[in-house]
Amino acid sequence: MFIARVTGSVVSTQKVATMTGHKLLVVEPYRLDDKKRQSLVTTGRTFIAVDTLGAGENDFVLITQGSSARLTPETKVLPIDAVIIGIVDQVHIDKFSVYSRNESNDR
Amino acid sequence: MFIARVTGSVVSTQKVATMTGHKLLVVEPYRLDDKKRQSLVTTGRTFIAVDTLGAGENDFVLITQGSSARLTPETKVLPIDAVIIGIVDQVHIDKFSVYSRNESNDR
Amino acid sequence: MFIARVTGSVVSTQKVATMTGHKLLVVEPYRLDDKKRQSLVTTGRTFIAVDTLGAGENDFVLITQGSSARLTPETKVLPIDAVIIGIVDQVHIDKFSVYSRNESNDR
Amino acid sequence: MFIARVTGSVVSTQKVATMTGHKLLVVEPYRLDDKKRQSLVTTGRTFIAVDTLGAGENDFVLITQGSSARLTPETKVLPIDAVIIGIVDQVHIDKFSVYSRNESNDR
Amino acid sequence: MFIARVTGSVVSTQKVATMTGHKLLVVEPYRLDDKKRQSLVTTGRTFIAVDTLGAGENDFVLITQGSSARLTPETKVLPIDAVIIGIVDQVHIDKFSVYSRNESNDR
Repeated sequence: MFIARVTGSVVSTQKVATMTGHKLLVVEPYRLDDKKRQSLVTTGRTFIAVDTLGAGENDFVLITQGSSARLTPETKVLPIDAVIIGIVDQVHIDKFSVYSRNESNDR
Repeated sequence: MFIARVTGSVVSTQKVATMTGHKLLVVEPYRLDDKKRQSLVTTGRTFIAVDTLGAGENDFVLITQGSSARLTPETKVLPIDAVIIGIVDQVHIDKFSVYSRNESNDR
Repeated sequence: MFIARVTGSVVSTQKVATMTGHKLLVVEPYRLDDKKRQSLVTTGRTFIAVDTLGAGENDFVLITQGSSARLTPETKVLPIDAVIIGIVDQVHIDKFSVYSRNESNDR
Repeated sequence: MFIARVTGSVVSTQKVATMTGHKLLVVEPYRLDDKKRQSLVTTGRTFIAVDTLGAGENDFVLITQGSSARLTPETKVLPIDAVIIGIVDQVHIDKFSVYSRNESNDR
Repeated sequence: MFIARVTGSVVSTQKVATMTGHKLLVVEPYRLDDKKRQSLVTTGRTFIAVDTLGAGENDFVLITQGSSARLTPETKVLPIDAVIIGIVDQVHIDKFSVYSRNESNDR
């Protein structure tokens, strides 16, 4: 899996029938800042993932890719290769907190 | 999934028998422009995807890769690893519209 | 899928038993030249794919990766992750012909 | 598979129900230092993997990606694409020891 | 598949039970030198693959990734994403021999 930040959404009317009603979010994968190792920074990439958890903009989420994206109750038969499997509360690296959802929301 | 722009098509006569009659489009993955974050820009990559939705040149589409490309009614038994699952109407990032199909078609 | 040029072949005697008799070709993925957008250029990568279609050196082919490489009649039980699913006759991008097999063979 | 160093952990409360109780570790893929070829160096990437083996911070581990991440007894039905399948004791390259868990722990 | 050179091995004692007794080799993917196109050069990446064929250090091998790594008799139920499916004897590119196992072993 990888950590990503939710930054937007996609609207698509003409689509494969089974996709109707599924929320499509824009997510940007993040990685550890490799200099200071004290924060998460964007990789500059842009993916689209299905959300079944009610993630909102600026939330950090866990993304599963590939066939395992179909291993949630809501996505079993969908033609998708990326799904949000969790909303991230905290990330610790080298015993340092590099992300905390509460602090982030206060900003 | 990722967002891509349809830019062309491929003709192939000698092919695996099950591929007969399936439209093959050239698609170029796009990502958010990471400076201004106000438009989508090409990643410079070139993929080929099966289209079952009638996507046309310059349309932005959603591409699913891997085994899930076989999870649409028309592609169940095909030896493919990429399919168009939706034609994109709108993409919003940071609450800003970075793509709208209508405006795009007017240009 | 992606477009690749067939540039060579691999000989392997000690191999998984089911691989016996399957042709292994060296293929180099190509992408659109992103400056002029009028020709295909190599990505500099080197892959090996199974060929069941009789592709020859310099042919441009369509490559399927992953589990779908096993979705052809000849490759169902093979431990492979890449197969040639078509020999490319023509590629059009931005309504411009960026590759035509006939012209290419004349050169 | 690839070798990675465990450098942190992720806490997620809102998640797909089946993920409850599974430990999520931050792992950073390593590769051979290609100049001297005598040590492992980070690739600068950041992944999240499920741990069922009790790996601890600074351990080097083997990561399996994709559908095979579901081929362990504890992960069969999980929507995950990365799992730790072993804790690395030693890595030899060119007959040189580039990593030994014991020496590493002494430091 | 891709061509890789076997350069080392990994020892892991604490691991998923089904992995017991399986040989884990360090393999480095190679690609065609894109200037002269007359030799294979390392990509600088480092992978770990299961070996069932008795490959030795410096052998060039064919690596299959993903779910197909489980399509050999010895690896059917293993949580692995990379396996050696053949030991390479010869690689020809542009009709030029870029690798021959016999010559390589003489050096």
